[in-house]
Amino acid sequence: MAADIAEQPAGYSRLLEGGPAAAIAEVAARIAEQRPKHVVFVGRGTSDHAALYGAYLTEIRLGIPVGLASPSAITLYGARPDLAGALVVGVSQSGGSPDLTEVLKVARESGAVTLAVTNNPASPLAATAELSIDIAAGHERAVAATKTYTAELLTLLLLVEGVRNGDGRPGADERAALEKLPQLAEETLAERGSDELAQRYRFASRMVTTGRGYAYPTARETALKLMETSYLPALAFSGADLLHGPLAMTDPDVPVLAVVGGGPGGTSMADVVNRLGERRADVVTVGAHDIAGACGRLAVPEVDERYAPLLDILPLQKLALALALARGEDPDAPRGLKKVTATL
Amino acid sequence: MAADIAEQPAGYSRLLEGGPAAAIAEVAARIAEQRPKHVVFVGRGTSDHAALYGAYLTEIRLGIPVGLASPSAITLYGARPDLAGALVVGVSQSGGSPDLTEVLKVARESGAVTLAVTNNPASPLAATAELSIDIAAGHERAVAATKTYTAELLTLLLLVEGVRNGDGRPGADERAALEKLPQLAEETLAERGSDELAQRYRFASRMVTTGRGYAYPTARETALKLMETSYLPALAFSGADLLHGPLAMTDPDVPVLAVVGGGPGGTSMADVVNRLGERRADVVTVGAHDIAGACGRLAVPEVDERYAPLLDILPLQKLALALALARGEDPDAPRGLKKVTATL
Repeated sequence: MAADIAEQPAGYSRLLEGGPAAAIAEVAARIAEQRPKHVVFVGRGTSDHAALYGAYLTEIRLGIPVGLASPSAITLYGARPDLAGALVVGVSQSGGSPDLTEVLKVARESGAVTLAVTNNPASPLAATAELSIDIAAGHERAVAATKTYTAELLTLLLLVEGVRNGDGRPGADERAALEKLPQLAEETLAERGSDELAQRYRFASRMVTTGRGYAYPTARETALKLMETSYLPALAFSGADLLHGPLAMTDPDVPVLAVVGGGPGGTSMADVVNRLGERRADVVTVGAHDIAGACGRLAVPEVDERYAPLLDILPLQKLALALALARGEDPDAPRGLKKVTATL
Repeated sequence: MAADIAEQPAGYSRLLEGGPAAAIAEVAARIAEQRPKHVVFVGRGTSDHAALYGAYLTEIRLGIPVGLASPSAITLYGARPDLAGALVVGVSQSGGSPDLTEVLKVARESGAVTLAVTNNPASPLAATAELSIDIAAGHERAVAATKTYTAELLTLLLLVEGVRNGDGRPGADERAALEKLPQLAEETLAERGSDELAQRYRFASRMVTTGRGYAYPTARETALKLMETSYLPALAFSGADLLHGPLAMTDPDVPVLAVVGGGPGGTSMADVVNRLGERRADVVTVGAHDIAGACGRLAVPEVDERYAPLLDILPLQKLALALALARGEDPDAPRGLKKVTATL
């Protein structure tokens, strides 16, 4: 898991240069041509969180309505929604989950443009979809996905910006910002805050993670990593949903990890952190600036909120790893899990 | 909270007869005429779970693609998705959350048909939407929503079946099945299993809830009720997602509540319960039949999975109430919560 985590800056460089970038641009140009009326994302687990990021990007950057599909409507109940004019995107590191493959098959039959985003171009998912992108993350050794997650994020970002620009390549400003990512990711991984924080959470019995907008997928993925590696029950909420009920559950014994970026999502989260502070919750933020109400911070570089998910998750993956080790667990062999999960 | 829970059978009768049924039929007939290309649901907290049920119904019963919207894309990042040809449904008991109102306003401006489903026909949400349905649940006294949740579920069911039938009223078979609901709800509420189970969970420090397809909203809503009233961290997963990671977290110390109906969702869940049983998890099911791997069951009547969410949640609401009392909490005054939560 540590080796997978460390490879992420190199993974960013690989996706931004040469072959993979050209392959993504080709798919993006075709989608820009087709002008889908709406987009449906489908994924499971970690890839569902990448899909959620793709959904925010699509709605905000392209102005196209999006939905996240529940495979069971199609695979269990035989729903056959009319998807003509839609783009349906399946996201899966293995490309091996039968339910996602079935959803893409049904979507393609009903006239949708279908796209597989996977780390295995020879997978059933990639074979079923009309279009396919290889996230080129290389073999992932650990069961808990890390480098395939961020490769999915960057692939979806390049895809959406390529569609936005029309010719399949992100615009010049966008490219200039993206070129800095590998170096920023290196710097973020070099920070030591995660290891100290793992000591602080050694005896925590539960955790809440929260974020809004672009940062919400980061909160969800962090909770999943903590559950997979440390068996710590971690509840992820959008900052808004947290105020609609689960706030009652927060008290000084429940550590809260809040992702607070520098844009509109972060501004809204700062209010949530204030509210949590009033309730004497133990809040640690992930961001570039200290926030009133929080008692600690994992430092990440300041970037546009759109890029922040590619950096913010790095210290949180390191936290999940360090916490598993601090608690005497083996993060490379989580109980009861296999790398490819087949659900119908 | 106990009084609100007890009123649900009467609430069902009210929605099925006379005025409310006619009002829903009128809206359903107009939607059937408009033939939306896709449907977007938006809600927060409990109402988001009702919206999720509406999403399954729409995809399975109407064959129309659905999405659940993230208000923040519109309210924080200024996304202006082109929603011409779409139906956008806001679900909210109070109708008072500014973010949902903003989403419906933007949707209406972009050419969508908009519908508010609320317990307050004089609310900003209802005033903003082109169409509006009053769920007619009467004043809800407790902060934790119970009778407004099930009224939202039944309203969405009547709406979808009315659209399916074309003239706005559910078909004859459907009406025959629905007429039995108030009586079945009475019988379900008369069962005593929830009180015994509350004793068993007196010292539980966390909980997992799970279900698939139509039963997934029930799992989500149960988790929220437990968090709101007993401050018990409860994690809800679709049965499929549970196998993609969080399964690692289950052990004999984590009680699992699994909603296992009699249809395709339940059949798929039975496998999940078997897997949990192999891991020696403490599984209690909600359903009409015992399942291998489980060590207990909350009994509910056997009905089509489509109707089950209207009954399955009843003993689970009672469980949340009884558990709060057993733990010395006041379910009518959850810490830090108000009845109307305003988020932007």
